[in-house]
Amino acid sequence: MSKSAIEGRQRVIEAAAAMLASHGLRGISIREVIKFANAPLGSTYHNFPNGKQQIVTEAVQWAGEQASAQLQACLAQDKENGIQLFLQQWRKRLTKSEFRHGCPIVAAAIEASEEEDAEPVKQAVSTVFAHWQQLLTTHLISLGHAASYAQSLAVAVIACIEGAVVLCRGQQNIAPFDAIIECIPAMLAAKQA
Amino acid sequence: MSKSAIEGRQRVIEAAAAMLASHGLRGISIREVIKFANAPLGSTYHNFPNGKQQIVTEAVQWAGEQASAQLQACLAQDKENGIQLFLQQWRKRLTKSEFRHGCPIVAAAIEASEEEDAEPVKQAVSTVFAHWQQLLTTHLISLGHAASYAQSLAVAVIACIEGAVVLCRGQQNIAPFDAIIECIPAMLAAKQA
Repeated sequence: MSKSAIEGRQRVIEAAAAMLASHGLRGISIREVIKFANAPLGSTYHNFPNGKQQIVTEAVQWAGEQASAQLQACLAQDKENGIQLFLQQWRKRLTKSEFRHGCPIVAAAIEASEEEDAEPVKQAVSTVFAHWQQLLTTHLISLGHAASYAQSLAVAVIACIEGAVVLCRGQQNIAPFDAIIECIPAMLAAKQA
Repeated sequence: MSKSAIEGRQRVIEAAAAMLASHGLRGISIREVIKFANAPLGSTYHNFPNGKQQIVTEAVQWAGEQASAQLQACLAQDKENGIQLFLQQWRKRLTKSEFRHGCPIVAAAIEASEEEDAEPVKQAVSTVFAHWQQLLTTHLISLGHAASYAQSLAVAVIACIEGAVVLCRGQQNIAPFDAIIECIPAMLAAKQA
């Protein structure tokens, strides 16, 4: 593939991730993604022979990797307060988009679980959650948590973030996110359940 | 309205709540709700003149009240461990439905926020979350928490539950819910942030 073809393919994936975060899985149509990405119709069908499902699957993978990279950067920058740093960055993202831009992975998780034929999307969602969980677990163990509690804590932190994003969108304000920023430290401070 | 007409109307609302929890907002059609509720088409259009939006709005209100009543019963039954009791009941509900039956309010919150013309649904979602939050805040204050931390804690607990429900559906297992059951006590034990 030429450089511009690779760029065009990537634009489609990023457009799909953005639309997934704001419009949800069922709110996405290939035509709108292509329009948003300014990509040609023909090459998009060529690049993604399995159509919408393939585009959404790759969008979930890409968005998951982006979030992982952001999380890793925060944890590397400040070992003690890396999770709080990550929460602050998410807070900014939510307020900047006026709560319209939720989490593309959550949108895909909820809507794909309602559909019979969305196996590849479900698989991608599951892999993304597992990777975030693994990053956080490793980090929490390095902070002195017991392995099994670190694993639960990692999941609980992710659940808090995802739930708060949903609440912020539902209530159209940032208060739920501020609430988890205030309460997560108590979970992190506990060395075991 | 006759007794059977009232019952028919209520069956439609409960069917819509069940379908919202399993199929999401966009997965609902009036025809399917009516079929599921075994209700006549004509009287349903008469009972819900604003169509799907009205049915979904009332389903969100009804499901929200059901969850509130369940939460209140748990808190009244065991003041110290009422929240844990509520979590255990939710855990059962999730496993029983094999993770297909998520939270109807979350489904409505995510999908309604993606739609321009779903104002009454958004309003109902926001009212339900506010009511849950108020119930938990009052309970946490009665357990000795400072009012402002109790408010944050109430939201954080709701965020944890909603996020965990999404993760359980995404991963098709109960582990995320068990993780929050393990980690929430640490948040509850902290008297202030």
